[in-house]
Amino acid sequence: GEPLLFILGPCVIESQDSLLNTAEEIRKISDDLGINVVFKASFDKANRTSIDSFRGPGLEEGLRILQSVTDQIGFQTTTDIHLPEQAAPAAKVCQILQIPAFLARQTDLIQAAAEATRDNGGVINVKKPQFIAPEDIKHVVNKCRESGQENVLLTERGTTFGYGHLVNDMQAIPLMQSLGCPVVFDATHSVQRPGGKTTGGNRAMVPYLARAAVAAGADAVFMETHPDPEQSPSDGPNMIPLKDLRKILQQLIEIRVLVNGWGNL
Amino acid sequence: GEPLLFILGPCVIESQDSLLNTAEEIRKISDDLGINVVFKASFDKANRTSIDSFRGPGLEEGLRILQSVTDQIGFQTTTDIHLPEQAAPAAKVCQILQIPAFLARQTDLIQAAAEATRDNGGVINVKKPQFIAPEDIKHVVNKCRESGQENVLLTERGTTFGYGHLVNDMQAIPLMQSLGCPVVFDATHSVQRPGGKTTGGNRAMVPYLARAAVAAGADAVFMETHPDPEQSPSDGPNMIPLKDLRKILQQLIEIRVLVNGWGNL
Amino acid sequence: GEPLLFILGPCVIESQDSLLNTAEEIRKISDDLGINVVFKASFDKANRTSIDSFRGPGLEEGLRILQSVTDQIGFQTTTDIHLPEQAAPAAKVCQILQIPAFLARQTDLIQAAAEATRDNGGVINVKKPQFIAPEDIKHVVNKCRESGQENVLLTERGTTFGYGHLVNDMQAIPLMQSLGCPVVFDATHSVQRPGGKTTGGNRAMVPYLARAAVAAGADAVFMETHPDPEQSPSDGPNMIPLKDLRKILQQLIEIRVLVNGWGNL
Amino acid sequence: GEPLLFILGPCVIESQDSLLNTAEEIRKISDDLGINVVFKASFDKANRTSIDSFRGPGLEEGLRILQSVTDQIGFQTTTDIHLPEQAAPAAKVCQILQIPAFLARQTDLIQAAAEATRDNGGVINVKKPQFIAPEDIKHVVNKCRESGQENVLLTERGTTFGYGHLVNDMQAIPLMQSLGCPVVFDATHSVQRPGGKTTGGNRAMVPYLARAAVAAGADAVFMETHPDPEQSPSDGPNMIPLKDLRKILQQLIEIRVLVNGWGNL
Repeated sequence: GEPLLFILGPCVIESQDSLLNTAEEIRKISDDLGINVVFKASFDKANRTSIDSFRGPGLEEGLRILQSVTDQIGFQTTTDIHLPEQAAPAAKVCQILQIPAFLARQTDLIQAAAEATRDNGGVINVKKPQFIAPEDIKHVVNKCRESGQENVLLTERGTTFGYGHLVNDMQAIPLMQSLGCPVVFDATHSVQRPGGKTTGGNRAMVPYLARAAVAAGADAVFMETHPDPEQSPSDGPNMIPLKDLRKILQQLIEIRVLVNGWGNL
Repeated sequence: GEPLLFILGPCVIESQDSLLNTAEEIRKISDDLGINVVFKASFDKANRTSIDSFRGPGLEEGLRILQSVTDQIGFQTTTDIHLPEQAAPAAKVCQILQIPAFLARQTDLIQAAAEATRDNGGVINVKKPQFIAPEDIKHVVNKCRESGQENVLLTERGTTFGYGHLVNDMQAIPLMQSLGCPVVFDATHSVQRPGGKTTGGNRAMVPYLARAAVAAGADAVFMETHPDPEQSPSDGPNMIPLKDLRKILQQLIEIRVLVNGWGNL
Repeated sequence: GEPLLFILGPCVIESQDSLLNTAEEIRKISDDLGINVVFKASFDKANRTSIDSFRGPGLEEGLRILQSVTDQIGFQTTTDIHLPEQAAPAAKVCQILQIPAFLARQTDLIQAAAEATRDNGGVINVKKPQFIAPEDIKHVVNKCRESGQENVLLTERGTTFGYGHLVNDMQAIPLMQSLGCPVVFDATHSVQRPGGKTTGGNRAMVPYLARAAVAAGADAVFMETHPDPEQSPSDGPNMIPLKDLRKILQQLIEIRVLVNGWGNL
Repeated sequence: GEPLLFILGPCVIESQDSLLNTAEEIRKISDDLGINVVFKASFDKANRTSIDSFRGPGLEEGLRILQSVTDQIGFQTTTDIHLPEQAAPAAKVCQILQIPAFLARQTDLIQAAAEATRDNGGVINVKKPQFIAPEDIKHVVNKCRESGQENVLLTERGTTFGYGHLVNDMQAIPLMQSLGCPVVFDATHSVQRPGGKTTGGNRAMVPYLARAAVAAGADAVFMETHPDPEQSPSDGPNMIPLKDLRKILQQLIEIRVLVNGWGNL
């Protein structure tokens, strides 16, 4: 059994300074806990609810800032891409390219990301769309493999459950693992309310879901974190305050030690 | 009350000859019935299940063929786009640009399609994503309007309902109309099984759903049709054979006459 | 094609006087429109949200009052039962015994109601549970038939759709009809919000759904109606005011005439 | 933090001998592991799919056999009841009375079970219906409390998720606990397929879900077990073979030790 991988960072790049500060805080925690962290931040929030919402610094500037996180803090990074032409430049900077759930059916995007990460020794991380069953992600995995990329992560981030709700089917974790791919549990977007409704209570559910997912065998946990989530331009109600991060990570590590001790689940 | 608008055609452009033949058959029916038809065909199936699936002739050739339908058969046309840069050329040929449900949250695509259709006196038709509530499409409508496009159609094409099923909430029709937009009912994709499972029985449900939608007040009906659906490279089990089309259209027209007679619903 | 059957009445018996008054109002409408009405009212609301909610007059007094509707107004009646021992006395008074959706899996209740209605020349009307697929109601139909009752109605009243919502799958109408049973569309409970949340807007959706269901081929329509729904002790936000009933019924009749004219759907 | 409570036993009482044998096997495991077990078996499967399915020995004989489990093996017991009049006799024998999910809205049943368990120093265990949200079970809890019963367990056993599927929302565990009630996770019925479809693969998901639920803070775990599930007259594909039980229990205990060590979640 491998130790857990953690994908941590804020939702969106607000500025280089703020991103480096957040990365440094996470670095301290990861050094203390001895964990593997890939640092995450988006350069463009391409599907915001409103046309006027803050979207981020864009591809070129975003990648430059992510490179500075690697150079100055020492973290490998991940970001999400939205168009095929973003794959090649992003894969030069980021170890993991993440495919948004809404876009996971777009063949050209999958193919571009699979090829670019393959060429750079990286990994493609496909978020299971909210609108398909765990088994059906195999078609996307096949697209990656037929593009020559064997290093495929799959992310559980919730499934559409009526209007205004997502639900996490924890069965999705072993079901997607049976396709031969490690599975990431995205605790942040799992508590999102589709349609833009937000409540401060969402965040309170993150630890429960993350613990459940690790106990069900998830290989990695994705959590967005922010020094002051209420001030974040995006996803504030779902992000974990940096000050609460360490405790949650410790609990997840403890569960993972148990799971690894049990051998093959 | 306006008469119904019908959006009819095959799933994908297989060849110019086959498309013109299908358009001609539909033309005969529409002339006989005296109905408004916008002819639909896709130039690229960008989210097929498999990387090797037939995708269509591509943008340039596809638009050329769609133009020939207008020139030779006299139909206005519609097609779906997948990337922002496709909006401008497509809007020059097609009266209606359709935004796929999976992509309806992509701000750049909406904005490009809204602007291009506005500039060409056309219409944007946004398919309500399977993963949002009818009310929440208002955010997309706002993006269109803030881009200067007031001619917005909304399409009901089913909502995620557990794994492997869609369901049509007929309440979505008046709810989306209350946003000030005419509503299209997509009878073909409503009977799709997400995840690629298909059954020959899907098609049998199309008339029931289309009739229900028109009785609930839908302003337009989208149906894919094909001379021989079983031979179609895509969406075969959901398409109506051309030979059955006339009867279904007649029933829908009859219901629409009643609805229009009732005045404000 | 048969004319539509209408099952109409208030949610619960509040008093003999009020029930007779409501029945008389409905009688005037049904005489004017020349329609078949079975009058509905519950003698016990056995699953109210709160232990203190008004439940009705109980079995004995309720049946006495329902008998007075038949005697004085001339309507056949229907009511819902909750325990096996209620079947025999209720079937002596009511032409149709209705099985609540939550209870449709209780073998003893189905068997008692099937046998009692069979013995009295009546009909059993099973509401499809919110938690099963249309096809799966066949097991309940089989229980009725094995109990010697061939006169089985099935009612579509919505299916669980996430939290706090029901959705009507109009495909359920032909699917349940294919089991050999006429299908009732319950427009009132379809707009209920599970969990007790209510909004005044629910009622506005009743006509849309009822029209859709009749266009999809429903054989009967169930609608609760009340002279002053806001004053009703139960289901107020979903009931149609008596003064609005005639117009809705007329629209449904007009659609039914079309459907019958089309022959086999 | 309390240790986990386990509710274990076969689905239905097949015979006194077989039940005592199963109880004895579980007793050995519980003695070895030092765990709290309440032994479960049903005397009547009142909602089987078919009218001819095996239902069990009935109330009187079933309670006699359950009493023999207490007398000879030393386990407290639990069983499910379906009619109000079963509450009083069952509460004399069983420490916990379980209310089936379909019946949890029936006021008379809840009231009878709450009063009978209160009078006998026992506990009422209400299974959250598949058709309501976790928060909405508060109405049922209130009915219990207003009947003078404060010892209320709530069970998560899955929520309707489209057709033919249930899903476990692990958020239900803390949400229902916030009503002041310990929460049981029913791992067996959570993998049931509504509508009677069964697959041998269901059982494989039980350990994943049970581990997830305990990590999310569940206070108790319900699992049906059988010496030879394939031979069981009911629920075979969901039950854990007795020979696999010990390993699963051990894993759950280990997770619970962690959870208790974390203090207030």
